[in-house]
Amino acid sequence: MSGETRQWTAALLVIGDEILSGRTQDQNVGQVALWLNQQGIRLAEVRIVPDQTDRIAEAVNALRSGHDYLFTTGGIGPTHDDITVDAMAVAFGVPVVIHPAARKILEDYYRDRAGGLTEARLRMARVPQGAELIPNPYSGAPGVKIGNVFILAGVPNIAGSMLEALTGKLEGGRPIVSVTVGARAAESEVADLLRETEAAHPGVAIGSYPFFREGRHGANFVVRSEDGELARRTGEELSRRLREAGYEPVAGGI
Amino acid sequence: MSGETRQWTAALLVIGDEILSGRTQDQNVGQVALWLNQQGIRLAEVRIVPDQTDRIAEAVNALRSGHDYLFTTGGIGPTHDDITVDAMAVAFGVPVVIHPAARKILEDYYRDRAGGLTEARLRMARVPQGAELIPNPYSGAPGVKIGNVFILAGVPNIAGSMLEALTGKLEGGRPIVSVTVGARAAESEVADLLRETEAAHPGVAIGSYPFFREGRHGANFVVRSEDGELARRTGEELSRRLREAGYEPVAGGI
Repeated sequence: MSGETRQWTAALLVIGDEILSGRTQDQNVGQVALWLNQQGIRLAEVRIVPDQTDRIAEAVNALRSGHDYLFTTGGIGPTHDDITVDAMAVAFGVPVVIHPAARKILEDYYRDRAGGLTEARLRMARVPQGAELIPNPYSGAPGVKIGNVFILAGVPNIAGSMLEALTGKLEGGRPIVSVTVGARAAESEVADLLRETEAAHPGVAIGSYPFFREGRHGANFVVRSEDGELARRTGEELSRRLREAGYEPVAGGI
Repeated sequence: MSGETRQWTAALLVIGDEILSGRTQDQNVGQVALWLNQQGIRLAEVRIVPDQTDRIAEAVNALRSGHDYLFTTGGIGPTHDDITVDAMAVAFGVPVVIHPAARKILEDYYRDRAGGLTEARLRMARVPQGAELIPNPYSGAPGVKIGNVFILAGVPNIAGSMLEALTGKLEGGRPIVSVTVGARAAESEVADLLRETEAAHPGVAIGSYPFFREGRHGANFVVRSEDGELARRTGEELSRRLREAGYEPVAGGI
């Protein structure tokens, strides 16, 4: 019915020792994933690497060639451990330059702030040659776009504001529609039912996510498709089959 | 003083459409990272891939050869979307077999439970040929070890109980010691001070993690080293220098 649909994919590279050390709980994977869904782009892979130029550059080159888009988070601040721009320049084989418009943004931002535009702060105007800027409505220092790579801040609020600035600007397909059906069923009891329901509806994927809560087993079953109508119909059939098998389904999940 | 120290590294492969869709917030990266630190092993890379056999197998082979250990989470339950064992068998080029001890564990676990040991549940006794089991004190179905790869459950409580079972059993080096010093300083104001302090103490890395809270800028500075005494001494010097620069340091971070 819907014809051949091109699937758009993105990868995310999270740059940060603080995530790999367990000190900081990442919040960008979820945020970027949900935003990409809305743009009709599928997050197809995530990598998290340490603050090391060679490791970042290697991951950038592996991911930017395999996907329509690559997003990175982290490492674009004013301190010595912020090396994302340098690593990106290595990956693209270009020099690092001061972007005039970024410099202007920082001059304006720091004009009335203590210390003014110091050399450390001016680091945040450095970009790989040929890059464009991504607006940062939250705190001045812009993100950077080079080729199909979008370099975002690591602080989740700032990364989120940069995504906001990009909303609707990337070419994508249809958003993935998810329909969740929960039930107080151990997933092992309904494994056949799930597999059969998925097999009967080409174009949907059904995921099963068990939990144990308030002393009882349960699971949420998530039906995903680019075809929203198909996802809804399959969700309804799954609900019906669960009910027939003696489990009370909960639309929207438990 | 401490002589040459071998650094032990691990990678983590998170398998799960539910993480990449943004539906579920991953909790295993942080949990595995903290546990590895205690074992004296550094988490050096994380990848998150979808529930697709080829993508999983490719990532397994890339990661298991580059690190001392590879951990995976997710995809070892009883339902059709649980394909980690099959993908691992592809990666290692071995068949999937029923592990007799795993079968015994499941028989015991499901003996008095509704439905008994169904075919779906027996899926959880499947392992790549040559694998050993990792005890699961939480819910019966064991994890799997093959070569240097440790296959854990995706549900964080269960993954955690498998890590508990492995505590102290892996060869590692010295745990990384972290000393955190917070200050109500915009990181751009103290960038030089941080870089100089790091440069003056070979063997430490200082990370800077800004935040904006209660209307004020601040940052936590994290000093990391395998040499605990060096980390503490560097943290003290950083505190002293921050104080001299007019910022009140907060030991342990803000």
